Amino acid sequence: MNTPVLVNGEPDGTINATDRGLQYGDGLFETLAVFDGECPWFDQHFARLSWGCDRLAIALTDKSLLWQEVAQCAADQPRAVVKVMLTRGEAGRGYRTVADGKSTRIVMRAPWPDYPAQHWQQGIRLYECHTRLGRNPALAGIKHLNRLEQVLARQEWAQDYAEGLLCDQQDHVIEGVTSNVFVVQKGELMTPDLTHCGVEGLMRNWVLRQASTVGIKTRVGHLQLSDLTQADEVFLTNSLIGLWPLREFKQQQFDVGPMYKQLFNTLIKTYPVYHA
Amino acid sequence: MNTPVLVNGEPDGTINATDRGLQYGDGLFETLAVFDGECPWFDQHFARLSWGCDRLAIALTDKSLLWQEVAQCAADQPRAVVKVMLTRGEAGRGYRTVADGKSTRIVMRAPWPDYPAQHWQQGIRLYECHTRLGRNPALAGIKHLNRLEQVLARQEWAQDYAEGLLCDQQDHVIEGVTSNVFVVQKGELMTPDLTHCGVEGLMRNWVLRQASTVGIKTRVGHLQLSDLTQADEVFLTNSLIGLWPLREFKQQQFDVGPMYKQLFNTLIKTYPVYHA
Repeated sequence: MNTPVLVNGEPDGTINATDRGLQYGDGLFETLAVFDGECPWFDQHFARLSWGCDRLAIALTDKSLLWQEVAQCAADQPRAVVKVMLTRGEAGRGYRTVADGKSTRIVMRAPWPDYPAQHWQQGIRLYECHTRLGRNPALAGIKHLNRLEQVLARQEWAQDYAEGLLCDQQDHVIEGVTSNVFVVQKGELMTPDLTHCGVEGLMRNWVLRQASTVGIKTRVGHLQLSDLTQADEVFLTNSLIGLWPLREFKQQQFDVGPMYKQLFNTLIKTYPVYHA
Repeated sequence: MNTPVLVNGEPDGTINATDRGLQYGDGLFETLAVFDGECPWFDQHFARLSWGCDRLAIALTDKSLLWQEVAQCAADQPRAVVKVMLTRGEAGRGYRTVADGKSTRIVMRAPWPDYPAQHWQQGIRLYECHTRLGRNPALAGIKHLNRLEQVLARQEWAQDYAEGLLCDQQDHVIEGVTSNVFVVQKGELMTPDLTHCGVEGLMRNWVLRQASTVGIKTRVGHLQLSDLTQADEVFLTNSLIGLWPLREFKQQQFDVGPMYKQLFNTLIKTYPVYHA
């Protein structure tokens, strides 16, 4: 069976070349982990999509309709990745937008990425990207379709690293190419401020909330590369992987630390699907 | 007759939703003015497309094949806009690229924009955009498909301005939303440096070359808004309009100046199609 791709509910898997999603990257996306027909973070994905629609003035789609199509794409799969894209829809030539209430809804399934269990157990090797993120508060935080920086960054390394680290044009550490980053120093949990660039990950928000709940001191602010190399522990988050501890960065070795273990254990107690 | 849209030469006008042009804005575009089956700047458009393909490592398409499809789209039209897009093609999930030599070639026609003749004769009103361009040398200069900044900028004004002016995050003047900008002060012709953001327009390059040829002193460098408001004349360029002089910016009035007139006269002598 071919991978299902629904475009506004239709299974032919194509969009018109006049769609602004193609012409300008004028749209948003979400990447959902679906386990046996359940998506533990669907509400949060939809909330971020809705936030992005507000920011870009794109017409939001119906939540229950979207869920129905996500479930249809993931049917009969023990684990599946379902990618949702919502574009501003079709248009004539030119950047000018028309508030016609139309958008294009795309829902597609991809195979589950079978990462090795040691990524969770022993940690990952992290590549330092030369590609820098441009700073633009107008686009920061949301998960929009302008992703050339990530494409260029991902071209920098082969399969010998599980993830790459991105800094912005001012050499602040911002995020991984597909994840957010956390640093532990003397018991304090820190993650980069995303006011100027980066994507506000759902798992990042869960970790910040969870840490506060159990009394861990947290800080969202500017981080430098030296904050990583001098850290007691570092870990990366996204809603497909949960949390991955850092094992090696810039030829320096890291141990899987107690804060990672505590947070990961809480995650798999709440969401057993994340068990490696 | 419907507007023709060719995708890899096929006239159905759709692309697969798995195309990286949609997923990441992973591609390039060119906007061609075609007059009675001739495109005066086709070589320059193709050269910029080729430069963009080098920068992003996208497989370039065959030049004569592309021209054939452009001509097919513009057939029987006295004046037409033909937009060319070239994406990295289809792919599975993830940013990682595969050098498989494939790309998706899209050629589509749009109606000629009937701008009023006074835009050339008396000049235009220019809007000062609040939206800022992010700085990223890795993407600067080329005409890539990540255009959300332009979309947001264009949402700021209605039809009462012919163009909007964009600065970068450091408040340097960079370009118009769809044009490049030139400033004349005491006989010197200046245009912004595009090392960190902006698109290197074909008409911008023509103006710089032409000005040098006739002994006008030119400078490519940093410009501030005050350089515009204190200018003797200002004009905007792109390959659809040629040159437009500035008439009003930030409630200040400008005259159509001698340098605009000189360059515009040279343009229409070389390319009579640009006659307003």
